[in-house]
Amino acid sequence: MANVNRQWVLAKRPHGNVSKANFEYREGRIPKPKDGQLLVRNLYLSFDPTQRGWMEDRPSYLPPVKIGEVMRASSVGEVVVSNHPDFAPGDKVMTGGGWQDYCVASPTGAPFGVNKLPAGVPLTMPLSVLGVTGLTAYWGMLDLGQPKAGDTVLVSGAAGATGSVAGQIARIKGCRVVGIAGGAEKCKWLKKDARFDAVIDYKSEDVDARIGKLCPKGVDVFFDNVGGDILEAALNHLAMRARVVLCGGISSYNATKPVPGPANLMNLVIMRARMEGFIVIDYMNRTHIAMPELLGWISSGDLVYQEDIQEGFKNIPATLTRLFTGKNIGKQLLKID
Amino acid sequence: MANVNRQWVLAKRPHGNVSKANFEYREGRIPKPKDGQLLVRNLYLSFDPTQRGWMEDRPSYLPPVKIGEVMRASSVGEVVVSNHPDFAPGDKVMTGGGWQDYCVASPTGAPFGVNKLPAGVPLTMPLSVLGVTGLTAYWGMLDLGQPKAGDTVLVSGAAGATGSVAGQIARIKGCRVVGIAGGAEKCKWLKKDARFDAVIDYKSEDVDARIGKLCPKGVDVFFDNVGGDILEAALNHLAMRARVVLCGGISSYNATKPVPGPANLMNLVIMRARMEGFIVIDYMNRTHIAMPELLGWISSGDLVYQEDIQEGFKNIPATLTRLFTGKNIGKQLLKID
Repeated sequence: MANVNRQWVLAKRPHGNVSKANFEYREGRIPKPKDGQLLVRNLYLSFDPTQRGWMEDRPSYLPPVKIGEVMRASSVGEVVVSNHPDFAPGDKVMTGGGWQDYCVASPTGAPFGVNKLPAGVPLTMPLSVLGVTGLTAYWGMLDLGQPKAGDTVLVSGAAGATGSVAGQIARIKGCRVVGIAGGAEKCKWLKKDARFDAVIDYKSEDVDARIGKLCPKGVDVFFDNVGGDILEAALNHLAMRARVVLCGGISSYNATKPVPGPANLMNLVIMRARMEGFIVIDYMNRTHIAMPELLGWISSGDLVYQEDIQEGFKNIPATLTRLFTGKNIGKQLLKID
Repeated sequence: MANVNRQWVLAKRPHGNVSKANFEYREGRIPKPKDGQLLVRNLYLSFDPTQRGWMEDRPSYLPPVKIGEVMRASSVGEVVVSNHPDFAPGDKVMTGGGWQDYCVASPTGAPFGVNKLPAGVPLTMPLSVLGVTGLTAYWGMLDLGQPKAGDTVLVSGAAGATGSVAGQIARIKGCRVVGIAGGAEKCKWLKKDARFDAVIDYKSEDVDARIGKLCPKGVDVFFDNVGGDILEAALNHLAMRARVVLCGGISSYNATKPVPGPANLMNLVIMRARMEGFIVIDYMNRTHIAMPELLGWISSGDLVYQEDIQEGFKNIPATLTRLFTGKNIGKQLLKID
């Protein structure tokens, strides 16, 4: 192989919408793994709304990506060189390879580590329904949402990689599930394939009024990926002792100034409700519990998912922007050519 | 006795600040208790921020007070006539007597019932530190806040009847307690008498900066009575797995239009934090647990409290407004002449 490692680095922090101009193409040399490390060639990259937060120069659950540093991303790749006894060349692994052809990965390195792919699963699955987004849905819905059979569960960003899985898990647990998504195509998929009980198209419907109509007994669990007006609308319809699972707030990720929160937080008091945030990395040591259950639901046909696979190294930055314009249907991935 | 029952009824719903003009003075006849009921003469009235909510024509945890109806309020009174075997004339009781001289009370009647005063306690205590405000502090702090020794606990409205007790309970549990209150006099009392570790005067200090300074390891429990800017400032300084106890939001109770919520709710996600509301009436069947513990702390001197006792039937409406201008120090009460 030629000693060239294509890379996209963070060139300039975004102010407002993230765009291709925030990144710069570079060619580096292929790095050399040390003892205990692996050289991994990236095959697929994962695109996640949380990457927008990593580009900001402010403290969060992970340190900011530095200017000039390869953009951080989860990835699936193939081991090329192994200096670790548990891995061999050719192994397919999931790690945080970033926007480049090759990375050095440490099985013990935070935050991604290196995990071999479960046998027999498609290469992309560990980045989508079995990956961070699927696990986020699993733990957020089950651990924080605590859905009980008969509950009404509302999900925003419902056609997304996390929302769609979260809603289906609630349906599997016997809940009535209402999804909020943008556009007829996404709504149709949610009703027909993901078998949500009802769907609200926020692009063409009055979300607040529709929640009231579709959730006459109130919302027991609200799994929120969006924030902003949609969060406020949901808080208007809480059932007693409702659980609001704060998973994300994509509506404000590209904002250039602080976006006010919901004016009706007092509804949490009136309804004795709880709003709680979480980060899936806290649950990574319990992946052995979640993964078989997710796989089982996929095998039985109870859980469906969609992947939106873009292609080509040059299209990496543009693919990230798809998340914020709602272009992706299901998990946004990119196959490196 | 003359057959006159002085009353203040709700005359007009408030738009913005509540004022005397929202109420109208009337004289009714003294009501007659039926079987199982009592006639109670009110001696002391309790004033609570939540009364502002009862005046609005919107669904809440209790139905709105109707126009022309006696204003709802907790009270301590004396049984005048008893048609119930467990009560005798002369008994001192706590009930929801409202803004009038006499009420008919049912021991089984929601939401206040009728409870005899514990032996030997001052008449006002069951309306303050042993009453709704003290119990609110007790259950909110202990059940939702779950303070652990060594935690940093922040309380807003800290000089109020609930906040001051909440903070002291956290101090008793071994926490470092920081209070936010308005004005030098309140802050001095909190430091010197209630023995808070530190106090922030929101009238003269930058609350956000001071929280950062006084809570360098972050806030493990935020007990909020205020909402608005103070809630937003507190959310900027959450510790990992922080608990935000939403007790009230007095900063917006008199607002004429929706007040935007905090722009930084995503901090709940980043810090895996929880925000939870509650209403003390859900805990009333556990008062036998809370009351002896509160009394014990009062006897031992660990828990101090203040009462602001106004006097005179004609001053009832004006006394309510004191809560929203921060005039009261400690529990706002009124002695009926």
